[in-house]
Amino acid sequence: MTGILHGLGVGPGDPELITLKALRILRAAPVIAYPAPDDGDSLARAIVARHLPGGQTEIPIRMPISTDRFPAQAVYDRAAHEIGEHLDAGRDVAVICEGDPFFYGSFMYLFARMVERYRVEVVPGVSSLTACAAVLGAPLAARNDVLAVLPAPLAVDELARRLSEVDAAAIIKIGRHFAKVRDVLRTMGLEDRARYVEHATMDNQRGLALDEVADDAAPYFSMILVHRRAEAWR
Amino acid sequence: MTGILHGLGVGPGDPELITLKALRILRAAPVIAYPAPDDGDSLARAIVARHLPGGQTEIPIRMPISTDRFPAQAVYDRAAHEIGEHLDAGRDVAVICEGDPFFYGSFMYLFARMVERYRVEVVPGVSSLTACAAVLGAPLAARNDVLAVLPAPLAVDELARRLSEVDAAAIIKIGRHFAKVRDVLRTMGLEDRARYVEHATMDNQRGLALDEVADDAAPYFSMILVHRRAEAWR
Repeated sequence: MTGILHGLGVGPGDPELITLKALRILRAAPVIAYPAPDDGDSLARAIVARHLPGGQTEIPIRMPISTDRFPAQAVYDRAAHEIGEHLDAGRDVAVICEGDPFFYGSFMYLFARMVERYRVEVVPGVSSLTACAAVLGAPLAARNDVLAVLPAPLAVDELARRLSEVDAAAIIKIGRHFAKVRDVLRTMGLEDRARYVEHATMDNQRGLALDEVADDAAPYFSMILVHRRAEAWR
Repeated sequence: MTGILHGLGVGPGDPELITLKALRILRAAPVIAYPAPDDGDSLARAIVARHLPGGQTEIPIRMPISTDRFPAQAVYDRAAHEIGEHLDAGRDVAVICEGDPFFYGSFMYLFARMVERYRVEVVPGVSSLTACAAVLGAPLAARNDVLAVLPAPLAVDELARRLSEVDAAAIIKIGRHFAKVRDVLRTMGLEDRARYVEHATMDNQRGLALDEVADDAAPYFSMILVHRRAEAWR
């Protein structure tokens, strides 16, 4: 009997936003794996640290800072190999995923490598999308709204075109693209219909108007929510 | 001191997909409210039934079957009034919301009536969006994918146009619109890139290819996920 690979959505950052199901599977797994920086602590592990029973084998998947795709592929190849050895030995492995594993998550890189050979089960988690709406205290979408999720690395023209065609949008992976996205929204007259959120549901969370954000200060895990028919943001 | 109105996302259906935070607030609230049909049991209440401590005041918000907007507005007016009396008396009220309160939820109708006068706090929940992806065992979106959430009541032309412009889509509120949506996808050659899910994460959940679904059998809470660059659906 090979083990099961669990992709556990553990929510956007507040340790209390883990589900009962993810918590149960997390605690029972003999092996846990999680993304981590090349040097330093893993955010995913930090979210669940208080819930860990101790005594589990841990596999940090350390990603070099380089944005080059090839080192990243090699890192996932090695992680898949190491995880596969545990599964082959009959041990379940729980991969800790910030937010939801299938919503723009790095879990997909492991998933693609493992799904043909192993049983994979995913526990959905609270995504950053709804966490940011909760932080801002305003509905994300309702009724027959068309909502788009737009990665901030898209080109200016494409962002503008897509924003012009929807009722609401979540622009994700802001990071170094903040000034570009703000300028697109400003040009379109949508700046007042947009709000910026960083570190949603964590102790250092902030929800800001766009003109309150410094040009080069947005972390990768930040988001801008836009609603063209906005009720007043609070 | 007036009470706090809590909008609690309790997840898509599996009682184990409630978060620790929603569970804590749910159990501590002296008053709970939830949507319910005119006659019969509330799905939202059923999701949390096993977690209720007993002794709470309960406010079912019973919605007539009519799709007429005016009776619905009157129902929310009455519910807001009743909830407001508890808040004025200093009692917190927890509104139980399937999925996430701010993701196409009926909570927004209460929220709009209460937010100017009361403190409102929302606990994000696991949405049907990521729950359906987990049921299907396939990533919803990744990398720089553009993802659209499209309500099925949209017109055929608009659905087709929007589907042609995105990498991935979640078509929600399928219900009686199933045959229309299937025909749009079929005409576009996307039927094999789409999967249907109903009752995600509940005991009676089903994930199906579109040609396995009967024309008039889809419940309101069903969804079709589409990925134009689909990895193989399993």
